[in-house]
Amino acid sequence: MKLLRYGPAGAEKPGLLAADGTIRDLSGHLSDLSGDALDPAALARLGDLDPAGLPEVSGDPRLGPPVAGTGKFICIGLNYADHAAESGMDVPPEPVIFMKATSAICGPNDPIVIPRGSQKTDWEVELAVIIGKRAKYVTEAEAMSHVAGFAVTNDVSERAFQTERAGQWTKGKSCDNFGQIGPWLVTPDEIADPQDLPMWLRVNGETMQDGSTRTMVYQVPFLIHYLSQFMTLHPGDVISTGTPPGVGMGMKPQRFLKAGDVVELGIERLGSQRQDVVADD
Amino acid sequence: MKLLRYGPAGAEKPGLLAADGTIRDLSGHLSDLSGDALDPAALARLGDLDPAGLPEVSGDPRLGPPVAGTGKFICIGLNYADHAAESGMDVPPEPVIFMKATSAICGPNDPIVIPRGSQKTDWEVELAVIIGKRAKYVTEAEAMSHVAGFAVTNDVSERAFQTERAGQWTKGKSCDNFGQIGPWLVTPDEIADPQDLPMWLRVNGETMQDGSTRTMVYQVPFLIHYLSQFMTLHPGDVISTGTPPGVGMGMKPQRFLKAGDVVELGIERLGSQRQDVVADD
Repeated sequence: MKLLRYGPAGAEKPGLLAADGTIRDLSGHLSDLSGDALDPAALARLGDLDPAGLPEVSGDPRLGPPVAGTGKFICIGLNYADHAAESGMDVPPEPVIFMKATSAICGPNDPIVIPRGSQKTDWEVELAVIIGKRAKYVTEAEAMSHVAGFAVTNDVSERAFQTERAGQWTKGKSCDNFGQIGPWLVTPDEIADPQDLPMWLRVNGETMQDGSTRTMVYQVPFLIHYLSQFMTLHPGDVISTGTPPGVGMGMKPQRFLKAGDVVELGIERLGSQRQDVVADD
Repeated sequence: MKLLRYGPAGAEKPGLLAADGTIRDLSGHLSDLSGDALDPAALARLGDLDPAGLPEVSGDPRLGPPVAGTGKFICIGLNYADHAAESGMDVPPEPVIFMKATSAICGPNDPIVIPRGSQKTDWEVELAVIIGKRAKYVTEAEAMSHVAGFAVTNDVSERAFQTERAGQWTKGKSCDNFGQIGPWLVTPDEIADPQDLPMWLRVNGETMQDGSTRTMVYQVPFLIHYLSQFMTLHPGDVISTGTPPGVGMGMKPQRFLKAGDVVELGIERLGSQRQDVVADD
């Protein structure tokens, strides 16, 4: 099942993508894709609905992030061996965790906004895991039962803010519109193996990232287990699991985004995103 | 005005502390201390209410964090010169930003929970600034008009998780019950100078921290201005502005918390907190 949220930013409604490609409205069945609505059992019940019996959404509405009420936007750093190498860093002995501000979250096709003073705005296609059920001290074996679904995310990053502006990565990761999520939350029943998903990113039509979740160092069940040793994961929390090689920072010479660029990215079975790059006014 | 939230965790009601020391219920005037209710103009209107005309809350209820709907729990690192020195680090050339998980937020007298595997759980009394009005690219001169109020916070920190477990401080800062806030949100009209507030912290009655916001390196208006260059600040966001000297990590030999300890901390005009230290079960 492919769940989504459509409509103007801040006023999205829940919906699903039917097999025929139409969006069907779920407002009659849940108020939003947040909290208890994300429980895997609750999502499974949505799967019993006949999409043909749901109101069809006309036109081509904006898509919002496919999850609401995100309390934590947790990222895993350097989680692909080749990406660590291009960043000039070793694969860490255990996962590197950092946070993006939840205020960075936006829809999958919302623009990438280059913040004032930025010279080094960069891209990162990533597999996001969306938590559906509270997780604390869970084992790897239990971990996947806490997942509502998967989505594409662009972990947009300002490299100078991240690494040249005094300590910690937060300030290069948290700018507004630095966290496109979607187009859909895809439930786990559609993803036979989250560790075998091709992923790609293009800038102005040129392929920059062409990888697969196969080469992820710390895999999804371990990451959920690991994070849950440090903090309780709540429904709506998003874990972005790291990026494969091909970011602008790792190129020789380095390449960064400028206003007017177009970024497209996607993960097999999870859909794709398209973003215009704009300067902040 | 001293605003607060009282009642069981997750079901708090808004209230205020009257001059006679009683808690008065504000449920008839606002649904919660979040979002638009935190706008400085909205808070000023609350100040026109006669506390004697509000229902008195009986007994001695638990206090929750005095703000709800916190999207970002932003901390400033090494923001007191003496604390940087005791940590063996230089004062940074510009503020160090990191995030605590919002799931770490709890009431001012809720226990400090030592997470499983922790050996180095430490304390940090800090001045927290609570945002009341959206702030993006604001000047220092405008900054204070975006503040709903001030509060005490304990930026509880697990030093091994923070610095010995691979990159970034997040995992030592985000554990459950690692962010006591309160007892009150004190509106700016009661705080003539937020940069002249004595602050203290005791463990089992022994004074560990005895400082003042006077020695803060980057001060409150600058911090709001600075943060707003990187990300939009929203109502309910909490900025914890760093800790003065006297944390356990900086002692020779180092001292850390253990189950059974009692931590008390406070800031003049902002009230005090008291926490039992317990082990996670």
